[in-house]
Amino acid sequence: MPRKPSNPGRGIHRETPATSYDVALLAGVSQSAVSRCYTPGASISSKTRAKIVKAADALGYRPNAIARGLITRRSNMVAVIITNLTNMAYPEVLFQLNQRLVERGMHLLLFTLSSERNVAQVLEEVWQYRVDGVVAAAHFSDEQTEACHARNLPVVFYNRRSSDPHAGSVCCDHERGVRDLVERLVQAGHHRFAIVGGPPESEVSQLRTRGAIDAIERKRGLVYDIYEGDYRYSGGREAAARIVSARRRADAVICANDALAFGCIDGLRRDHGISVPGDVSVVGFDGVSAVEWASYDLTTVVQPVERMVEAAVDMLLERIENPGLPAEARVFAGAFREGSSARLGTGAGDSRRRAGTATELPG
Amino acid sequence: MPRKPSNPGRGIHRETPATSYDVALLAGVSQSAVSRCYTPGASISSKTRAKIVKAADALGYRPNAIARGLITRRSNMVAVIITNLTNMAYPEVLFQLNQRLVERGMHLLLFTLSSERNVAQVLEEVWQYRVDGVVAAAHFSDEQTEACHARNLPVVFYNRRSSDPHAGSVCCDHERGVRDLVERLVQAGHHRFAIVGGPPESEVSQLRTRGAIDAIERKRGLVYDIYEGDYRYSGGREAAARIVSARRRADAVICANDALAFGCIDGLRRDHGISVPGDVSVVGFDGVSAVEWASYDLTTVVQPVERMVEAAVDMLLERIENPGLPAEARVFAGAFREGSSARLGTGAGDSRRRAGTATELPG
Repeated sequence: MPRKPSNPGRGIHRETPATSYDVALLAGVSQSAVSRCYTPGASISSKTRAKIVKAADALGYRPNAIARGLITRRSNMVAVIITNLTNMAYPEVLFQLNQRLVERGMHLLLFTLSSERNVAQVLEEVWQYRVDGVVAAAHFSDEQTEACHARNLPVVFYNRRSSDPHAGSVCCDHERGVRDLVERLVQAGHHRFAIVGGPPESEVSQLRTRGAIDAIERKRGLVYDIYEGDYRYSGGREAAARIVSARRRADAVICANDALAFGCIDGLRRDHGISVPGDVSVVGFDGVSAVEWASYDLTTVVQPVERMVEAAVDMLLERIENPGLPAEARVFAGAFREGSSARLGTGAGDSRRRAGTATELPG
Repeated sequence: MPRKPSNPGRGIHRETPATSYDVALLAGVSQSAVSRCYTPGASISSKTRAKIVKAADALGYRPNAIARGLITRRSNMVAVIITNLTNMAYPEVLFQLNQRLVERGMHLLLFTLSSERNVAQVLEEVWQYRVDGVVAAAHFSDEQTEACHARNLPVVFYNRRSSDPHAGSVCCDHERGVRDLVERLVQAGHHRFAIVGGPPESEVSQLRTRGAIDAIERKRGLVYDIYEGDYRYSGGREAAARIVSARRRADAVICANDALAFGCIDGLRRDHGISVPGDVSVVGFDGVSAVEWASYDLTTVVQPVERMVEAAVDMLLERIENPGLPAEARVFAGAFREGSSARLGTGAGDSRRRAGTATELPG
C-alpha cells in the first residue's frame, strides 16, 4: 500500500533517517532497484541509477546506514518455511528466493515440513533463531500468525492466504488459472471431466480443485468425477487406472499439479494404451521445467515464479523496515501454456497447436 | 578414522567431558543414534537406546552439556553451499541434509552458486555468519579450504574431493559406477559409444566422463566420441541431434547425468525417429526420481543419497566437536538400476529386463 516518504525533502528536520523505501517511492522505482544501485556489481540501467541518486540526494539517504543498521540490529537472515522439497515446483521457488534475498544482503535459513500439519513444531524452532522475517509456503493458523506478530517477526505467505491483519501474502490466482483451463477444454468440445486432487490438507490443491468444480458447474451438460492424488507422479499414474475403469470415461483430466499430470499421461498411454490427447486430454498446473519435455509437452498454467518471489521479498523487507504496515495481498495471474497434451485446436485439431507457447491470461 | 574414547571408563579422572562421539564409539552405534536417543520424539529402537544409556552411564556423559555448549559457543547453523538448485539431483540432497541437521539440533543456512566458479564470493558471505561448519557441494581451491580452517570452520565436501589435510569428504564412486555401466553395455554387444558430458568446470562431470573413457579404452575394438552437454534436458536433446548426424552412429550413449539422458532419449525418439533401446541404448547417472517415469524408465547408477548425507552430517558434527580431526574421505558405491532405456539382456533381449530393479554393485 502507498505510504508517504518519512522525509519528503532536503533541509527538513527529521526524526528517523530516510530508508531505501523512501528513496524508491520518490524515485518511482522498486526498492529492489535502490538496493541494486548500492550493491557493487549488481545490474541496473544508468537511467534508473540517475533517478535513484537524485532521490537519495534529496532525502539525504545514506545506504551505509542501512548496512550498519542491519549489522547491529538485525541478523540479515530470513527463515523460509516450505513443505516437502521433493514437490517439483519448490526447487525453483527456493532458488529464486535465495537469489533475491542475497541481492538484498540477506540470507536464507531453511525449514522444511514433511506435511503442513507440522507448522507448530517448526515455528518453535524458527523463534529460537534471531531471524528478521519469515517467508512461509505453508498454512499458519491465526494464532500462529499472531504469535509471530507478537514477537515482532514479519511474515509473508507464499501461495497461501491469511486473514491476519498484519501478514503479507503473494499468491498465484489458482481459481482463475483452472477456470481458464476448463473454459478452453469446454470450448474444444470436452464434456466429461476427471479432477485429480493433491493432498487433502494442501490449501493450494483445495483452491485448484474447487476452482475446477465451480467452473464446470457453471456450464450446462457437463459431468465430473473427483479422484484423490498426492501431488506425485505415482498418484497421477494410479488415478489414470481408476479413470480408465470408471463407468463413464472422462475425455479431459484436470490435475492439481504438473507431476500428477505426468503420471496420468504415462498411465493412460503406457499402462492402458489410451491416446493422449487423441482419446483423453490431460492438463496440469505450475509450469515446472519438465512440462517442456517432449514426452509430455504439457498444457498447463505457468506460475510467474520470478515475479511472485520478487514481490514476496519486497513485501517482507518493507515489513522488516516498517513493522506496523497493515496486511497486504498480491495476486498474480498464471500464464496459459499450450502444449500437446490436450486437444484445444478449433477444427484443424492438433496440427494447429503452437507447442510450448505461453500467453498471459487476459486482465 | 577410529579414535579412542576420551574417557574409557567410569571413575577415571578426565580433563574434558565425554562427547556423543565417545558414547557412540563405546556403544557401537552411530553418533546420529546417540543424538536421537536424547532428542524428544526422535525415533530409536529400545535395544539401541539401552546400549547408548549404558555407555553414557559408563562415561558420565551428560547430553545437556552439549546442548548448553551449543547455546553458548555455537550458532547451531551449518552453511550449505550448493550449485544451481535446478540441477535435478540437488533438491533431494538438500531435503535430506536439512532433515539430518534438524535431527541433530542444527539448521541449514543456504548459499547457492550459479557456477562453481563463484565460490570465492560466497565464502566471503559465509564468513560473515557465525556458522558452526560448512557442507560444500562445490569445489574449493586449497587456499579456500585452508582459509576456512584458519577461521576454525570445519568443512565437509559433498561429491567433491579435497587434498586438504583437514577437510572431510563424502563421495559417490563416479568412476566405478560408470565403469560398471560400460562393462554391462560391452557385454551386451555395444561397440560404438557416445559420451555426453556436463559443464566443463564440474568436477563430478569430469570424473564420470574420464571414468567412461578409461573403461572403454581398456577394451579392444571399441570406439567413442565425446559431446559437450550442460547437465540439462535441453543439452541432452541437442547432443542427440549431433549423435544422429555423426559419421559413425553410436549404439550406446553414456550421459553424465540423468537429465541429459532424458533429453537424449526424447531427442533420439521424437526428433529423429530412432528407437531407444532398439537402435541406441541410453544410460544416465544419479537416480533422480524421474528415472522411474514410464516414458524414460532409465538405466542408471543411483547415488545412495540418504547414506551419503548421513555420513556428511556425522563427519561435520564430529569436526565441530573435535576441530583437530585429520582429513577423512568416505566413498560410496552407487547402485545399478536396470530400466528399459538400454539393451542389456543376454539373448532374450528386452523381455528379460527387470524394470526398475536396483542392485548394489559388487564390493
